[in-house]
Amino acid sequence: MLNDEKWMKQAIKQAKMAATKDEVPIGCVIVKDDKIIARAYNKREMNQQSIAHAEILAIQKACKKLKTWRLEGCTLYVTLEPCPMCAGAIIQSRIEHVVYGAYDPKGGCVGSCTNLFEAKGFNHYPSYTSGILEEECSSLLKEFFKQKRKKA
Amino acid sequence: MLNDEKWMKQAIKQAKMAATKDEVPIGCVIVKDDKIIARAYNKREMNQQSIAHAEILAIQKACKKLKTWRLEGCTLYVTLEPCPMCAGAIIQSRIEHVVYGAYDPKGGCVGSCTNLFEAKGFNHYPSYTSGILEEECSSLLKEFFKQKRKKA
Repeated sequence: MLNDEKWMKQAIKQAKMAATKDEVPIGCVIVKDDKIIARAYNKREMNQQSIAHAEILAIQKACKKLKTWRLEGCTLYVTLEPCPMCAGAIIQSRIEHVVYGAYDPKGGCVGSCTNLFEAKGFNHYPSYTSGILEEECSSLLKEFFKQKRKKA
Repeated sequence: MLNDEKWMKQAIKQAKMAATKDEVPIGCVIVKDDKIIARAYNKREMNQQSIAHAEILAIQKACKKLKTWRLEGCTLYVTLEPCPMCAGAIIQSRIEHVVYGAYDPKGGCVGSCTNLFEAKGFNHYPSYTSGILEEECSSLLKEFFKQKRKKA
């Protein structure tokens, strides 16, 4: 749990970097053998790429770093509950464990809208922990959208 | 329906290219205003990237071509039922319609294992058609794995 908070703080750092670039503040780190092997934040607007979510970008970096598409033994930390694409990418990558901060009732696929980690038929099922530093992860998002509305 | 077969044949062409590179033969094209704007085939092994499925690579190309992450008005043709990651990427891209060939009981998320296009809570729902040139799409995969087993 203490370790989970330590790594989640690193994911939050990434999320804050997203906010400075006017991107929805979601951040992610991937950890293997007690070391961060990939860090990323949401770049959907700056890249104009629908797939440029924090988790996808971190998975791409981790595959590159480990020179394999199989991220066995890795734990992924992300500030917001993964969407269907990212939950699916985590399954496809064989990531062992996922830790997320805030819940996403409008798209979260690890418990909120549906739970892809418990759907039948796949050949890999990551374990997961939710709600780590939830308050901090969630306030980042709330504050971002509050500022956006002010500007609008 | 005739048009669907025409575009699916182009997706099959991509799938066949995957097979020649020893990749699981899955191909995809994205069509807008009666023109192909992106073509791709599965490159998971050659790129050693878990996210390098045909649909993801085609979506990346389409976003680059249209200079936007919003693929509104686009139809995606793919030879195999999308996995959770690809079904999710289709939702995230706001793709309007999806046409797939073969069904995937071991991971398909547009009807087989679950149906993400009918899950609650998302902000976009693509329409879809399934089973177009199913036999041809499915034989490609069967033949590929038969050859693989022979070599093993």
